[in-house]
Amino acid sequence: MHNTVYNPAVDNRNYFNSIYGLPPNVSFPNPIGFGVMNTFEDPLTRGSSNTSAPLGKAQGFYVIDTFNEYTLFHIFTANITEGDLKGTIDIFGQMREVDPVRYLTVVGGTGAFLGARGLASSTRVQIDRTPPAKWTLYFDLDLYY
Amino acid sequence: MHNTVYNPAVDNRNYFNSIYGLPPNVSFPNPIGFGVMNTFEDPLTRGSSNTSAPLGKAQGFYVIDTFNEYTLFHIFTANITEGDLKGTIDIFGQMREVDPVRYLTVVGGTGAFLGARGLASSTRVQIDRTPPAKWTLYFDLDLYY
Amino acid sequence: MHNTVYNPAVDNRNYFNSIYGLPPNVSFPNPIGFGVMNTFEDPLTRGSSNTSAPLGKAQGFYVIDTFNEYTLFHIFTANITEGDLKGTIDIFGQMREVDPVRYLTVVGGTGAFLGARGLASSTRVQIDRTPPAKWTLYFDLDLYY
Repeated sequence: MHNTVYNPAVDNRNYFNSIYGLPPNVSFPNPIGFGVMNTFEDPLTRGSSNTSAPLGKAQGFYVIDTFNEYTLFHIFTANITEGDLKGTIDIFGQMREVDPVRYLTVVGGTGAFLGARGLASSTRVQIDRTPPAKWTLYFDLDLYY
Repeated sequence: MHNTVYNPAVDNRNYFNSIYGLPPNVSFPNPIGFGVMNTFEDPLTRGSSNTSAPLGKAQGFYVIDTFNEYTLFHIFTANITEGDLKGTIDIFGQMREVDPVRYLTVVGGTGAFLGARGLASSTRVQIDRTPPAKWTLYFDLDLYY
Repeated sequence: MHNTVYNPAVDNRNYFNSIYGLPPNVSFPNPIGFGVMNTFEDPLTRGSSNTSAPLGKAQGFYVIDTFNEYTLFHIFTANITEGDLKGTIDIFGQMREVDPVRYLTVVGGTGAFLGARGLASSTRVQIDRTPPAKWTLYFDLDLYY
């Protein structure tokens, strides 16, 4: 999953988008952006490069829900459109940037993943902090039915 | 489920409301409203008309999470207040407008639906695209416990 | 769970924060704030006082999804960092202010709560309606695996 601002001039895949929501109107400093909701649709691939074999796309949003550090509360769907198993996987949980592994919850799914539940363990493969920050995440899913 | 702007002069049921969230502050064109969150409370009925027998109401929100087409990521609760089975059904998933059937996930419930999981298959019964757009959706729930 | 605006001068725990999102831009009166999303991180304790033994913190957001009364659609994670059982509990559901007990759904968990589902019954212990309103909630969790 990558986080970037859409640039139609350089991205012809049309599903590599992220938009930052409006910051809350507060009178105190809010450097992390606590309360900001950002929406994304990003490629899911089998490998860690943008040019790895495609699996589908992740779509949803996250809310920054810690005041003094980056904690991103994610709610999104992994739409798997390539391969033998097609369907959606619904994921819910926080990514706290300081944690080396972030554990999220699989709360359900459709298609080949109907009835899925389980654990989505995520690690960060890389990050480019130049604004707008861009990152790549690895997800390991342990599903049960 | 219908989507309309509240008009207290014509709607005395007080639960037929929808509000569009603020658009993100972006410098590129965003005609679909990617990143916009809309909140709704709408009647649930047994039939496809506003005057069909009431079941309760659907309340929650959706986020537009595709840049170039209407994909509405719904998170809402179906509050069933009429009939033998009363309680809430919690629903999570995307509706991609181009799909004839949209598959969402039932992630839980309370009351008569405690422990429910399953599939919520939705089709569109009608749409009036005159702004503000109004539509009626049909939901078929396959629940397991 | 308490709801307050962050004041670094009086709160040195750094996790007792709440921010009100921007109101939607509507031309009709919206006194309840229908459509507003508020983000919070608040202490979880074993007792009903701010000084009770800590359990962790609750982090997430709620959306006001009724037009004419306070109904707060909560989506949050209970991060349990103290005690024998550590992990996260993911909670989803509405709190309608007029209900003496509010039933929410546990949709999943991680760590010691991996695979949890169930019911989160919440009652309000106290409320101070002086703006910004502050309240304390009690949660009783019935979990199954």
